[in-house]
Amino acid sequence: MAVYTAVSDEDLQAFVASYDIGEVTSFAGIAEGVENSNFMLRTTTGSYILTLYEKRVNPEDLPFFLGLMEHLAAKGMACPTPLHDREGRTLRTLNGKPGAIISFLDGMWPRRIQPQHCTGVGIAMGQLHTAGADFTMTRRNGLTLEDWRPLFEKSEARADEVCPGLADMLRRELDYLEAHWPRDLPRGVIHADLFPDNVFFKGAELSGVIDFYFACTDALAYDIAVCLNAWCFEPDGSFNITKARLMLSAYARLRQPSEAEIAALPVLCRGAAIRFLLTRLYDWLNHPEGAFVKPKDPMEYAHKLRFHQRASGPGDYGITAAAAAQ
Amino acid sequence: MAVYTAVSDEDLQAFVASYDIGEVTSFAGIAEGVENSNFMLRTTTGSYILTLYEKRVNPEDLPFFLGLMEHLAAKGMACPTPLHDREGRTLRTLNGKPGAIISFLDGMWPRRIQPQHCTGVGIAMGQLHTAGADFTMTRRNGLTLEDWRPLFEKSEARADEVCPGLADMLRRELDYLEAHWPRDLPRGVIHADLFPDNVFFKGAELSGVIDFYFACTDALAYDIAVCLNAWCFEPDGSFNITKARLMLSAYARLRQPSEAEIAALPVLCRGAAIRFLLTRLYDWLNHPEGAFVKPKDPMEYAHKLRFHQRASGPGDYGITAAAAAQ
Repeated sequence: MAVYTAVSDEDLQAFVASYDIGEVTSFAGIAEGVENSNFMLRTTTGSYILTLYEKRVNPEDLPFFLGLMEHLAAKGMACPTPLHDREGRTLRTLNGKPGAIISFLDGMWPRRIQPQHCTGVGIAMGQLHTAGADFTMTRRNGLTLEDWRPLFEKSEARADEVCPGLADMLRRELDYLEAHWPRDLPRGVIHADLFPDNVFFKGAELSGVIDFYFACTDALAYDIAVCLNAWCFEPDGSFNITKARLMLSAYARLRQPSEAEIAALPVLCRGAAIRFLLTRLYDWLNHPEGAFVKPKDPMEYAHKLRFHQRASGPGDYGITAAAAAQ
Repeated sequence: MAVYTAVSDEDLQAFVASYDIGEVTSFAGIAEGVENSNFMLRTTTGSYILTLYEKRVNPEDLPFFLGLMEHLAAKGMACPTPLHDREGRTLRTLNGKPGAIISFLDGMWPRRIQPQHCTGVGIAMGQLHTAGADFTMTRRNGLTLEDWRPLFEKSEARADEVCPGLADMLRRELDYLEAHWPRDLPRGVIHADLFPDNVFFKGAELSGVIDFYFACTDALAYDIAVCLNAWCFEPDGSFNITKARLMLSAYARLRQPSEAEIAALPVLCRGAAIRFLLTRLYDWLNHPEGAFVKPKDPMEYAHKLRFHQRASGPGDYGITAAAAAQ
């Protein structure tokens, strides 16, 4: 829910004139996404997204993000791709901020997750992991194991305001994860934030993936764990094994996960759960009182974490290496 | 900056299916406007705006607003028009809220006002006042003379927090306006909120007017006064006579204001200034701390009001009946 930067019509027209995309016919801020300012830009040649990168994005990471989108799109993946201006640049400056014009992607993200959406996200993730295999740039995941304890410590003193006992639970979970985190799984480019609002569908069909601004180089199976958390729990908190199976079998059509990856899913799911729990907890404790953007409930992820803590193996997710290969 | 209502893809698809506009291809909340939830809706047949009316709009007023847009568009005015569903209805319900699909208008509102924009808004206002002359519905202006004192009283005790002496100044201004408000000027449909963000241009050319949700039946010249306030002051607070003359002469090409209307402009400008000053003051004193939507500065309108209080007549605005008729 963000348009942080105001753009004047004159500045915009001059900016657009440096691309070969015709003249501006309409321009409006988009009320989705909280990290950057996004605008729907229409010109005499088509529709585009103008993104201005706000302070939560490190400008040094932008060549990675834009290069990745371009690489994936060139490989045929349905995702936005940055446009080149008349001098060949994708990363530009507008209103003193880094910015880019990217292609517009049709589709809607699913507000209520149906089983076929889980098939779609499995396909999208499989496409991403295979198309990204020969992408040469790398980026460290800034929200992985080593980052969680320092992030926790920023909220530790007040965590129990959200739920009594939460600080202690998180402390013990971090101990567990630091002792058991798998370190030798196949690595590559992952999306790392493949939530429903980043996956577009037209009807039941996947139409593309957006928002690569957490993408990084990490264990491929960690992306699966993020998706199991984000797509396979029902609103009542129960885990939907059917959805998990659909996701994994769709993924396996493009890339077959190894037995080691399948076996690691419960601990990876614990890690993915604590990662979103910790950022939500921090935002919950630090958002301005009465702010328009309501922070997301960290306890949703505490409940998911508890499910994973109790899981005895990938079978509790309905997943086996054989099932994934179906 | 508003998307207050979340709309699920299934509800949206069912809603759109009741119109003859094809199938949804994309859907995104628009981060402009604070009264309603607006969405950019694209279908296989074109682009539309879906508006859901939130609690600041009285549902009983919606037939007036939608009927007015349809009337004006049918008369050839460039403005959005509500679509009819397969049963002929324009006003519908979605997610338990009143809603409508309206046509999409190309163009951008001017962030920095140039003289030619003042010509454009003069034309738009003239078109509105002439095209609206035979619109048969009426709606009382809910923010006119009788409403200002009760609105002021809600902020009176804390007005001096914004600026020492403000409460006293406002009290005396209301006394003046209650004694001098003109009551026999030509009346008709006015927009009543014709600010730059409600007037679209393509390059220097007016492309249309949006946001009729303050429209009402009132003195036509009051609309001119709103526009003199909103379009003819420079960022440094000075009044730009050239812009005022361009606006009035463009308006007069479509509708010649009477001498009585011209003579009343200074007091109408005082009224228009206090109307926006009072709503901004209320919002300033009552917005949640740290809210994402920054309230507009009420003192901008206190300075404009002071300019009007000092004006000795329409000549101080560069305006005479003869000049308007040029």
